[in-house]
Amino acid sequence: MKDVQKRSECPVSKALDVFGDKWTLLIIRDIVFKGFRFYNEFLETGEGIATNVLSDRLKKLVQSGFLESKKYELQKTKKVYRLTELGIDLIPVLVELLVWGFKYDDTLDLPKEKISVFEKIWEDKEAFIAEITASVRKYDATNYC
Amino acid sequence: MKDVQKRSECPVSKALDVFGDKWTLLIIRDIVFKGFRFYNEFLETGEGIATNVLSDRLKKLVQSGFLESKKYELQKTKKVYRLTELGIDLIPVLVELLVWGFKYDDTLDLPKEKISVFEKIWEDKEAFIAEITASVRKYDATNYC
Repeated sequence: MKDVQKRSECPVSKALDVFGDKWTLLIIRDIVFKGFRFYNEFLETGEGIATNVLSDRLKKLVQSGFLESKKYELQKTKKVYRLTELGIDLIPVLVELLVWGFKYDDTLDLPKEKISVFEKIWEDKEAFIAEITASVRKYDATNYC
Repeated sequence: MKDVQKRSECPVSKALDVFGDKWTLLIIRDIVFKGFRFYNEFLETGEGIATNVLSDRLKKLVQSGFLESKKYELQKTKKVYRLTELGIDLIPVLVELLVWGFKYDDTLDLPKEKISVFEKIWEDKEAFIAEITASVRKYDATNYC
């Protein structure tokens, strides 16, 4: 972990110094569960992130070693973002957030495929985490969320 | 979950609407891993939370159903805070954050008892989560962090 100002010695606190921010976690979620790689994809999620907030969070995630960015081969003016191993290791945190969110989601009519994802997690959480991790490494994440 | 303005239908996003904030998560961490129950305890952690931020976050956590507060029996001017079941169900998220934090903690000389906690998590994560959950329910959380 580089360029991170530490506030205390607790690992939880150190982790939150970097990504204890709603938008930062939503960007990581979009990479993990939706397979997003480009600035415009993050911008167009319908969650209403402001362009300056998005630019700032992407920059901070790259600076702190969670994301790496490089020129997109097929269109050189575009940058492609991907999670580093540091970021990939956050997947279990996101999965637990997903579990929590589903548990208390008593107001929405969820599409069936979402519920099947949830059942998959309950059945074998470690296998689900391994599957997601492999898909993120291969850049072909399914749209789980 | 009540009084929470929803931004999108994704459970992760909904979860982050409430606690996608560094200080909120640190308050929950202090209740879970340090057994904190009083305003002054949260204030004096050495993390430098401002009094207005602390008051605001405690209020929001109560409003959104993560914490409940009541008068402290032994000193009626004091409020005692405890996690509701909604908040207790966040413990797996915190444990994953702890795992992540430990993994990348290559700069600190950790006290031994912290490392033994980490080993306990690796050995049987579910058992560790159950142990922490039971201690939070009994209000006697050990200082793990």
